Amino acid sequence: MYYVDLNSDLGESFGNYTIGMDAEILKYVSSANVACGWHAGDPIVMEKTVAVAKDNGVAVGAHPGFPDLMGFGRRNMVVTPEEAKAYVKYQLGALKAFTDSHGVKIQHVKPHGALYNMAAVDEKLAKAMCEAVYEVDKDIIFMGLAGSKMIEAAEAAGLKAASEVFADRAYNDDGTLVSRKLEGSVIKDKDLAIKRVVRMVKEGKVESINGNDINIKADSICVHGDNPKALEFVKNIRETLIAEGVSIKNLF
Amino acid sequence: MYYVDLNSDLGESFGNYTIGMDAEILKYVSSANVACGWHAGDPIVMEKTVAVAKDNGVAVGAHPGFPDLMGFGRRNMVVTPEEAKAYVKYQLGALKAFTDSHGVKIQHVKPHGALYNMAAVDEKLAKAMCEAVYEVDKDIIFMGLAGSKMIEAAEAAGLKAASEVFADRAYNDDGTLVSRKLEGSVIKDKDLAIKRVVRMVKEGKVESINGNDINIKADSICVHGDNPKALEFVKNIRETLIAEGVSIKNLF
Amino acid sequence: MYYVDLNSDLGESFGNYTIGMDAEILKYVSSANVACGWHAGDPIVMEKTVAVAKDNGVAVGAHPGFPDLMGFGRRNMVVTPEEAKAYVKYQLGALKAFTDSHGVKIQHVKPHGALYNMAAVDEKLAKAMCEAVYEVDKDIIFMGLAGSKMIEAAEAAGLKAASEVFADRAYNDDGTLVSRKLEGSVIKDKDLAIKRVVRMVKEGKVESINGNDINIKADSICVHGDNPKALEFVKNIRETLIAEGVSIKNLF
Amino acid sequence: MYYVDLNSDLGESFGNYTIGMDAEILKYVSSANVACGWHAGDPIVMEKTVAVAKDNGVAVGAHPGFPDLMGFGRRNMVVTPEEAKAYVKYQLGALKAFTDSHGVKIQHVKPHGALYNMAAVDEKLAKAMCEAVYEVDKDIIFMGLAGSKMIEAAEAAGLKAASEVFADRAYNDDGTLVSRKLEGSVIKDKDLAIKRVVRMVKEGKVESINGNDINIKADSICVHGDNPKALEFVKNIRETLIAEGVSIKNLF
Repeated sequence: MYYVDLNSDLGESFGNYTIGMDAEILKYVSSANVACGWHAGDPIVMEKTVAVAKDNGVAVGAHPGFPDLMGFGRRNMVVTPEEAKAYVKYQLGALKAFTDSHGVKIQHVKPHGALYNMAAVDEKLAKAMCEAVYEVDKDIIFMGLAGSKMIEAAEAAGLKAASEVFADRAYNDDGTLVSRKLEGSVIKDKDLAIKRVVRMVKEGKVESINGNDINIKADSICVHGDNPKALEFVKNIRETLIAEGVSIKNLF
Repeated sequence: MYYVDLNSDLGESFGNYTIGMDAEILKYVSSANVACGWHAGDPIVMEKTVAVAKDNGVAVGAHPGFPDLMGFGRRNMVVTPEEAKAYVKYQLGALKAFTDSHGVKIQHVKPHGALYNMAAVDEKLAKAMCEAVYEVDKDIIFMGLAGSKMIEAAEAAGLKAASEVFADRAYNDDGTLVSRKLEGSVIKDKDLAIKRVVRMVKEGKVESINGNDINIKADSICVHGDNPKALEFVKNIRETLIAEGVSIKNLF
Repeated sequence: MYYVDLNSDLGESFGNYTIGMDAEILKYVSSANVACGWHAGDPIVMEKTVAVAKDNGVAVGAHPGFPDLMGFGRRNMVVTPEEAKAYVKYQLGALKAFTDSHGVKIQHVKPHGALYNMAAVDEKLAKAMCEAVYEVDKDIIFMGLAGSKMIEAAEAAGLKAASEVFADRAYNDDGTLVSRKLEGSVIKDKDLAIKRVVRMVKEGKVESINGNDINIKADSICVHGDNPKALEFVKNIRETLIAEGVSIKNLF
Repeated sequence: MYYVDLNSDLGESFGNYTIGMDAEILKYVSSANVACGWHAGDPIVMEKTVAVAKDNGVAVGAHPGFPDLMGFGRRNMVVTPEEAKAYVKYQLGALKAFTDSHGVKIQHVKPHGALYNMAAVDEKLAKAMCEAVYEVDKDIIFMGLAGSKMIEAAEAAGLKAASEVFADRAYNDDGTLVSRKLEGSVIKDKDLAIKRVVRMVKEGKVESINGNDINIKADSICVHGDNPKALEFVKNIRETLIAEGVSIKNLF
């Protein structure tokens, strides 16, 4: 019996600004990473996003990011582990007020953008963020890049870890993502991308950019719902997985 | 047997900016209103403030304010009740992550500055903020101006209310504070101020600016620790209250 | 010979967030009110907006607002005249760096949202903002609600004033706008709205909500380009005005 | 005849938060780097700082930084050259509104903190910032670390460059600053520090951390006025320089 989680970033609207097709993507995913007001999102958006995720039976996770709304949290910032720890606590707690209000339990924490990318390769940063989660609630799952420092740090901190994979990205032999700056980093063939995901889930393997089979753990697949085309792709992934005997379920 | 709480605003430093003599004032008060990063405070400061309050046996409350760091939360902003509700949840939750981390229970919520002043006279705003607290944790106490809409709203929402009084402010016949714009609004005679506070606590009465005795409930006295002189005043209030047989204790 | 300016708010996108159909609306208006990074806009957006306005031969004005991105500058904030003055200078200066870079002269300043609404009825606030503009560059025009404190303040400060009218809003007998809270405040009949505008420009008169003809000065008409329907309305206003012998030209 | 500029960061207070002893340090320096509201400072502070600098006959420069008030602009952020360019324009323009108001000409631009450090070694970033200054006003001087990419970029862009030196920092053989992480990076002997500065100004030489004499251009010396001890040091530098026949004068 196979199963996997489908996660997507939600609640990224801010004040008068709207981004994303949250109502649509919620029909296909099993977990929502909810922005916490720093790189995206605001309290009104958070309240509504938690409510609508609950209505759709989608598990809720915190999606903390850098204090950089102008850069959407996508720009690396050199923060200390102590700062990263406090920032994750703050944002996780802020979201928790809304989930507590709605009788929803926070399933996971997945850092956003540059914070995610930096933690994937920076042991100290990853450790600090995992400690933040553990100190707030040790039952919350830490979601990070499969095979990265984030997964190691989560386990070392005593948290359950969820390994995240990407359908449309190429992998190096060591399991890291091929840099977007390099040729072939993005899998543009949609059918191939879906086949790769199915294999990751069922066999725990993916072909690296060098043509070698490598091991990969796929607890959750990251998908996007920014536009109708992306939504269509998510729908295809979901349907193909189910047709292949893989259940879509959250991480609880 | 008389008792009263002494509360003070703490954790108002931000990044490279330091305000307040937190370490000193914590020796005298029983409750700390901790800034939550909007009008003052930041995650690093919140973490430290919760820790040091705990070390001093001082109860911790959330001190949410308007999203106006430049104005220190002291400028009225016309927000909707829905916005005020979400803002209080967000900030309360953010602080709760730090108190949960330290095994501290949040005792109370006291709105800051303009949010406090507006809620004191705006029933809908007060109601929205009390609902926010109730939905996050119905055991948290709501602290507001004695005799104001905040106290009514807290009780209507099913929360315990704590009535706050001011040692150095004159009161109108209806129990509201005399506007700072008017002559005589601030009690400059320190001894008189302390005598008034003792009477509020022991008799539940205070002389209004018109010379009439009015009823007032004094669960907590607001004090400041911004400078050595303010600290000295707090010390005097504390010692006089104790000498008068009034115990200083938090609201739990 | 009749003429009038058509102005619209532009450059309101922020970071990863896009708002407005700037490229489209620029084909129809003669003046652009460019957001200055406080209630909307960011430096990258400002640079591009100035460049594209120049390319379209559209005059550029600064559109300063409250420091309230979350509320899009639409929420009243109780600031002092000194603060309003400094805020207008700051934002005007910021935009001026981009116009100077492109060899464009700033034509006007029009406060945004709540700042506009407050200044329309608050003499001190209006005066402070006009002084700000005068001190930076006394040749810049101050645009405000026709017949309001803003126009008086501009003239008193020694600035040229531009009186702004609204096609789709009802007016009281004293020339103020009918509150949006009241029935009939918005003119929903598009043809009627356009007829009213033509009359304001050609006769300097408009029928108030009470059926009385009142005097109104129409130097500029405010139009919006948020959606295709709004754009269509702007196109209609423009074509009708031209057909009626009214030239569309900026304020220089 | 020798002369040198003494510069210091000013106007770093923000809202209710006060930092620095601006009134004191202004008695000793010839140039002020005024914070522009992003990493520090606000419009009210900027207005006052420009006025008080003018009163003291101190030249005014813009001190733009990263959009990181919480980190005081001291944390590296990975921004694109296009972003850095727009950020410098925005902040320079904002300050220029205040200097224009006071009839003061902006003398220079000196990037702050992490933006300074990054530009010192990143040619593209330095180039982008110099272009920003040039496009706003090509007569403004660009101040940067002596011998760094900033000086090269300024000259390449057609700007006058001012080479800045540090009294209390050790230099490598190639003229770069010894990293603060290394032993001996900070010159703690105050007398030695002053002697080194005098030699930099008069001979254009300084002894590197390896004991070699290297060439260094000293147009301006960076000094701090954060506390009484720092002020005393500035006073000593100033008096010693004058006693050694070096005039203290700004860069105009």
